[in-house]
Amino acid sequence: MSADQATKHVAVIGGGLVGALNACFMAKRGFKVDLFEKREDIRTMDVVRGRSINLALSVRGREALREVGLEEVVIKEGIKMYGRMIHGGDGSLNEIYYGRKDQYIMSVDRRKLNEVLLTAAEKYRNVQMHFEQKLVRCDIKTGDLEFKSKSGQTNKMCVDLIIGNDGAFSAVRQQMMKDTLLNYEQTYIPHGYMELCIPPNSLGEFNMGVNYLHIWPRNEFMMIALPNQDKSFTATLFMPFDIFNNISTVEEAMVFFREKFPDSIPLIGEEAIRETFRKNKALPMVSIKCSPYHVGGKTVIMGDAAHAMVPFYGQGMNAGFEDCIVFNDKLNEHNDDFDAALKAYTEYRKPDAQAINDLAMYNYVEMRKSVNSKMFLLRKKLDNFLYMLFPNRWVPLYTMVSFSRTRYHECIKRREWQDKMLTKSLNVGCVVLGLSFVFFGRHMLTKQGSLLMTLTEDIAGNFKSMLSA
Amino acid sequence: MSADQATKHVAVIGGGLVGALNACFMAKRGFKVDLFEKREDIRTMDVVRGRSINLALSVRGREALREVGLEEVVIKEGIKMYGRMIHGGDGSLNEIYYGRKDQYIMSVDRRKLNEVLLTAAEKYRNVQMHFEQKLVRCDIKTGDLEFKSKSGQTNKMCVDLIIGNDGAFSAVRQQMMKDTLLNYEQTYIPHGYMELCIPPNSLGEFNMGVNYLHIWPRNEFMMIALPNQDKSFTATLFMPFDIFNNISTVEEAMVFFREKFPDSIPLIGEEAIRETFRKNKALPMVSIKCSPYHVGGKTVIMGDAAHAMVPFYGQGMNAGFEDCIVFNDKLNEHNDDFDAALKAYTEYRKPDAQAINDLAMYNYVEMRKSVNSKMFLLRKKLDNFLYMLFPNRWVPLYTMVSFSRTRYHECIKRREWQDKMLTKSLNVGCVVLGLSFVFFGRHMLTKQGSLLMTLTEDIAGNFKSMLSA
Repeated sequence: MSADQATKHVAVIGGGLVGALNACFMAKRGFKVDLFEKREDIRTMDVVRGRSINLALSVRGREALREVGLEEVVIKEGIKMYGRMIHGGDGSLNEIYYGRKDQYIMSVDRRKLNEVLLTAAEKYRNVQMHFEQKLVRCDIKTGDLEFKSKSGQTNKMCVDLIIGNDGAFSAVRQQMMKDTLLNYEQTYIPHGYMELCIPPNSLGEFNMGVNYLHIWPRNEFMMIALPNQDKSFTATLFMPFDIFNNISTVEEAMVFFREKFPDSIPLIGEEAIRETFRKNKALPMVSIKCSPYHVGGKTVIMGDAAHAMVPFYGQGMNAGFEDCIVFNDKLNEHNDDFDAALKAYTEYRKPDAQAINDLAMYNYVEMRKSVNSKMFLLRKKLDNFLYMLFPNRWVPLYTMVSFSRTRYHECIKRREWQDKMLTKSLNVGCVVLGLSFVFFGRHMLTKQGSLLMTLTEDIAGNFKSMLSA
Repeated sequence: MSADQATKHVAVIGGGLVGALNACFMAKRGFKVDLFEKREDIRTMDVVRGRSINLALSVRGREALREVGLEEVVIKEGIKMYGRMIHGGDGSLNEIYYGRKDQYIMSVDRRKLNEVLLTAAEKYRNVQMHFEQKLVRCDIKTGDLEFKSKSGQTNKMCVDLIIGNDGAFSAVRQQMMKDTLLNYEQTYIPHGYMELCIPPNSLGEFNMGVNYLHIWPRNEFMMIALPNQDKSFTATLFMPFDIFNNISTVEEAMVFFREKFPDSIPLIGEEAIRETFRKNKALPMVSIKCSPYHVGGKTVIMGDAAHAMVPFYGQGMNAGFEDCIVFNDKLNEHNDDFDAALKAYTEYRKPDAQAINDLAMYNYVEMRKSVNSKMFLLRKKLDNFLYMLFPNRWVPLYTMVSFSRTRYHECIKRREWQDKMLTKSLNVGCVVLGLSFVFFGRHMLTKQGSLLMTLTEDIAGNFKSMLSA
């Protein structure tokens, strides 16, 4: 902070993962920061309801944590996942690495991470935390805020900047929808999710290979499982609501599990499956896009408030954390001129946030279906081979998204370029083969030759359909 | 209504065009109807603020009015518009008919139409009207409603069915967004609009050809004008906000008008243009899509509440009126079983509402830009010619939308089929020509022949790009 500038006052709305991290970023800039969270302090709660238990932390998230000095403390409690472990319907196991053998994403505990971030934010002398304070009035153009505490007390404040980190059902965004021309889109996918637990085995050890994200891909639906520090796994069943609704008794749930996920029954436990289906119901998933993310120089939304996404790329938190880096960069570029920085933030971040929303949607198909396909695996191998040959020019999509900070929209563009190159190479290959046939036809019409032709055409056809899928 | 069934109680929220018409439809079914409008009775108001002054009534709207016996009374006050009158930058005038020479849309006065509909609804003994009653609580799953009158009085009611006809910013829809998984999308286009008036001339007569929708297409923006009963025209300038914002003084407005719409200045009057730009600012336009339109058998939204659209196809009101027909049909099909009828309504209406939203967006480009293109006019002529030859098989898009009740999504499908047929014919034509050239090349390489080839290729190229545009 320059000494000659009055201290700027920022209100961060929401003390979840992105809110708490953003408070650190803003505090580090020297701003006076007030963080408001409507729930009680997660660090003092017995049981935390709602939201998934663990999350996949990858490069974007780690880099944001590093900028506020928290990377080490977070990753030392995380569990490395080097790839997907595919559970076939026949109980077979196949691993698919995410990238190079030294590249991994990390399973981290949502609650613990949130606690670390809140404690870190609180350490800044210029940060004030307020729990159990519900936003009841929010003037997005003047910065006037009003909160109500649990006991009914009113808390008023006028700030220079409102940062809405208040999640998918953001109150700040709702106010923006009332007072400005906000383009907005929310889509509930026709699938829901339900969490189950795979406890440690009788020796107190992990019940499955620990360093993987386990997937039971069943085309129309899937189950996944991520490892936890306490040697359990948290499994999540993703499935069309139609199928969930058809399972009306716990007995039907068991029949379903016996048919679709037989190898998981001894892991989860029959009684636990019954219990879960008896007590819980499938929860919905929403994807949200909007723009702009800001109002003048007074209000900005980030994280799920701006771009809630379906969970299938494991990028929701990572994208939200990267928002904090980008916003911080824009403040640097514009010398804390909020008008200019907020405008630049929307412009820069919009194509990336929309791209990762789309990628997350696409990845559901990859996880539940494509991983079953030989062509997908062939492409994966080809990508990895080319990545080895040209580590700077041919980076596979998953690697760009999870192991680099390549802008999300750029990831899509490069993947499209890769697809085009492969199609072209394939076409050239076909033409060469075709011409060879025309000119040397007689000599090729041996048994081996025609077999080769058929085979080549077959592969080419499959490959093309895969690329266009 | 069957005698053995208890009278069903319906609340219509919103007394605008679609709400008032819907009240008539529901009353005709024998339901007990309460209509709630938050503004005062439009029939008793001096000046009505907001919304456009006149509207284009076409076949879908007329058919809905006919079903409640109101077509005649409405159209006798309307003004026929047989086509578009194109005002070139050089002051030239060119008419483009909408369809056959006996087909027309009608310019009707929004306020008068609303008054006719309210009076018609009020005539039913089973209809009760409530003005200046604001919806303050709405339980979309039980039918519990609470309104507050202007004087602060509370009015509670529990109904069998809530029909939200409360416009683009529907309170009923907002409640649905809170309590159900509503897919929702709102898009503000980057263009705004501003209304101006072209008064009658000194003889008290229309200042331009009366039976047209006048357009000043200027590619990036446009002005249009619709005739009114009092011999004036209401003109509307549609333009990117960027351009509106660049006009910061009335003098700049005059410079702009002199350059872009010189022939309109004597019609509107220089002082009136200055006055309009001094007092008014451009207003935004929003396009809304959502689904489903219903909640169980208790709540349904229609008209702008379900599918507000940009005004460029003149179908906003017509689509809303057609909603009433469709909903009435579904109630017939399902014997007033609200659960079944509401579900069927969403399923049937969703693809059509989304199609007309898209068409309305597309038509802005047609009105401000394509009408300037020779290729567009050629295609229009070709379509009309084919329509004359095959009146049942080749109906032009505009004719299907405005002069038939062909389902909107079917209109798009048929147009796509027409485009494909034309492309195919063209390709066959090119191949024939190409082959002719190969076989009779020598003879064609006369001056005339090569000229013919160039010309044909040119037309084919243009045509293709037009079709793919």
